Amino acid sequence: MITAEPTIDAWFEAHRDERLESYLEFLRIPSISTLHEHAPDMVRAAEWIAAEMRRIGLENVEVSATNGHPVVYADWVHAPDAPTILVYCHYDVQPVDPIDLWETAPFEPFVKDGRVVGRGSADDKGQLHMHLKAAEALLATRGRLPLNLRFVFEGEEESTSANLPAWLAANRERLQAEAVVISDTGFFEGNVPAITTSLRGMLYAQIDVIGSPVDLHSGGFGGAVQNPANALARIITALKADDGTVLVPGFYDDVAPPSRQERFEISCLPFDEEDFRKQTGVPALIAGEPGYTVLECMGIRPTLDVNGIWGGFTGEGSKTIIPAHAHAKVSCRLVPDQDGDRLFERFRDHVLAVAPKGVTVEVQNLGTAKPLRTDTDNPVSKAAARALEATFGQAPVYIRSGGSIPVASLFSTLLELPIVMVGFSNPDDNAHAPNETMVLLNYETGLRTITRLWDDLGSMTPQAARTGGMTE
Amino acid sequence: MITAEPTIDAWFEAHRDERLESYLEFLRIPSISTLHEHAPDMVRAAEWIAAEMRRIGLENVEVSATNGHPVVYADWVHAPDAPTILVYCHYDVQPVDPIDLWETAPFEPFVKDGRVVGRGSADDKGQLHMHLKAAEALLATRGRLPLNLRFVFEGEEESTSANLPAWLAANRERLQAEAVVISDTGFFEGNVPAITTSLRGMLYAQIDVIGSPVDLHSGGFGGAVQNPANALARIITALKADDGTVLVPGFYDDVAPPSRQERFEISCLPFDEEDFRKQTGVPALIAGEPGYTVLECMGIRPTLDVNGIWGGFTGEGSKTIIPAHAHAKVSCRLVPDQDGDRLFERFRDHVLAVAPKGVTVEVQNLGTAKPLRTDTDNPVSKAAARALEATFGQAPVYIRSGGSIPVASLFSTLLELPIVMVGFSNPDDNAHAPNETMVLLNYETGLRTITRLWDDLGSMTPQAARTGGMTE
Repeated sequence: MITAEPTIDAWFEAHRDERLESYLEFLRIPSISTLHEHAPDMVRAAEWIAAEMRRIGLENVEVSATNGHPVVYADWVHAPDAPTILVYCHYDVQPVDPIDLWETAPFEPFVKDGRVVGRGSADDKGQLHMHLKAAEALLATRGRLPLNLRFVFEGEEESTSANLPAWLAANRERLQAEAVVISDTGFFEGNVPAITTSLRGMLYAQIDVIGSPVDLHSGGFGGAVQNPANALARIITALKADDGTVLVPGFYDDVAPPSRQERFEISCLPFDEEDFRKQTGVPALIAGEPGYTVLECMGIRPTLDVNGIWGGFTGEGSKTIIPAHAHAKVSCRLVPDQDGDRLFERFRDHVLAVAPKGVTVEVQNLGTAKPLRTDTDNPVSKAAARALEATFGQAPVYIRSGGSIPVASLFSTLLELPIVMVGFSNPDDNAHAPNETMVLLNYETGLRTITRLWDDLGSMTPQAARTGGMTE
Repeated sequence: MITAEPTIDAWFEAHRDERLESYLEFLRIPSISTLHEHAPDMVRAAEWIAAEMRRIGLENVEVSATNGHPVVYADWVHAPDAPTILVYCHYDVQPVDPIDLWETAPFEPFVKDGRVVGRGSADDKGQLHMHLKAAEALLATRGRLPLNLRFVFEGEEESTSANLPAWLAANRERLQAEAVVISDTGFFEGNVPAITTSLRGMLYAQIDVIGSPVDLHSGGFGGAVQNPANALARIITALKADDGTVLVPGFYDDVAPPSRQERFEISCLPFDEEDFRKQTGVPALIAGEPGYTVLECMGIRPTLDVNGIWGGFTGEGSKTIIPAHAHAKVSCRLVPDQDGDRLFERFRDHVLAVAPKGVTVEVQNLGTAKPLRTDTDNPVSKAAARALEATFGQAPVYIRSGGSIPVASLFSTLLELPIVMVGFSNPDDNAHAPNETMVLLNYETGLRTITRLWDDLGSMTPQAARTGGMTE
């Protein structure tokens, strides 16, 4: 086989400035999926992707309406003897608050110190853009792809993918492939290339504690009514023990205990706790659960965290009221084999059981995602490892991500496809936080990783990509 | 003695519309003392009062600058054989949030169902306005007052009166009087006329819990860092036992135990728990401390309440972060003989002692106020009771207010004056809450109560007003 790298490399070099400008243009669309007022921006972002897909020569381009934000689909399937890969990324981004902690406007991206700064630069618009630009380079230099690709780019990943499951089920027939490549993860601490082998699942709930219909004067009523904010604090405290153990009855029932091998592998990762602490800026790390290391707590153990809390007077100075109501958003990261929907019931029952008297408490399920584990012996995973080593000059480590991609498990349960998670962001890229960044070298080298991966897989038969051998 | 009531009554009748218009005009000035952006409105409100004082014939009118908002002073002291009374009210109001719960704009007052609706209508601009209008009626109909009055109207009552103590100390000489009449309290449940015989003190603190400098991705970091919102909930929960007992060490050390007589008097008050519960709109009342009734908990026992809590993502939908920081405003209502400043030290020490590891915790003292008890045998208090009964047709009850007037205790400690708290607001007037109201009949009848009180006291010698007898 004659590799096409020189031509591709020349293309990448020649179009560097234009590519960056396109990347920044894409980031300028404020595609925040959870906020209703950004619905038109979601459509703009989807149409922007579709236009790019058409321009570079992808086919069957579709901005597919759902009950929420559109799914963007395209394919190129003219390599009958080569494998077919489904590529998944998402074009929606996290909200930007606290906006005052951004050094610049989140949707006016720019390059600084070798990083692209802006909401979505890493999670996940930057990585989606890499896939578009890798396909463009191949199609522009050769007129064809070395394998068959189907792109599924969704707009609701950051809001627990409420509508993608139905879309996947409806489009099951045309989504046949050898594997799914998901680019929505990142490298390990120290910018070490990585393949992610597990994701945590998620349960996202809201607790609403309601007292009086209006705020009450704390002098006139203090001592006679239950304070919703105090009550909420009691409820939250009752969710976890002092040592971090989650107290929701049955929470750990379905947790698959980590194997010795798994714990050994984690202990081998090049992890420096003090470097990590400095990166987070916290005064001290905590191991979230007794008997586990920090890295285990982040990757293979479930968690429970308050994501937001509010109620009463939050302005400057003092206002002496008993808040009418108080609220918290609480999410759990789940590990195999926990089930978010079943846990929500238990979570709700526990909250109601520990709620103090004198207030009304409601618990809403804002969404769940299943945890996922992938197989590193898969031929596509091995090819991804080769491509990472060849382009970044370093073999990837295999990591368990603490994050969640709500829809990921569906690719294996609904479409019965193996999943390979190879992503290019960096642990210090401030995903979900102010001043999100993407290391430009990861973006640029990652383009080469992707084209190299497609070339590698394109040299295999579909059967080989599935089973690793030539026999069916 | 010939009473002047017919003339005064005619004046009150003739000027009813004009008086209401003036009242509403005063309420239109958004005099929120705790918010810096309203500083110009505070000056406008002070100048509005001063202009009224000059117009109606009060003397030595002064808008007296402080390090915060101005004190407005005026007097009329041409009744050498009559007592001198200091009148205290405040022209600042509470903030208006949650603004979305107001049915109308808080500073566009109007009359509905026999009530004046608008921020400050009851607490305390409405009552201040009553004192101006009572003095105006006396001066307009008779050209003189039946006694000597000194008015001290402050602009920082709702922000713990930071600057009035210094002003009182500096003006001590000219503030000599037989007693202070404070009109910043109200009637009892069911709109029963009342004289308030005690106020709770206050300690207002803010707890700041800081983790990372920025919000962290809850997937990437959950399990490895302490969550500031969870930590804050733990701290708040550790402030009170399940049964409502405050757990700050030493909190109850200086609480004067209530006497049998005091508890008996409280038990005689016409209090219907179910009516009161309906008024608050809560699903159930709680007695905030074991061994005490609801009414005792509101009036003669100390409390601890969260007034506001905030941190992390509070928008629509879900955002999966570990908040960088979380905050709470917490206030305690204090009873004799608790000392707010000493308790702040204990409160802070306790918060720091119970704070979980992995976060930085800071505690700020936002202000304190001393608790107060007054003497009902005082001649001015007895005169106030007579005036209330004569005008409202019902003898007043004596009540212990759960509220605080930060500066009240200073009148007794600094100026050594007896204090009489007679006010005209109503328990269901939504003071400090959205849709604050004042019962217009209380306002109108209260004007007559005030003029009658001044006439009654004007018939006494200064000595009699002080001691109840003719002997010095």
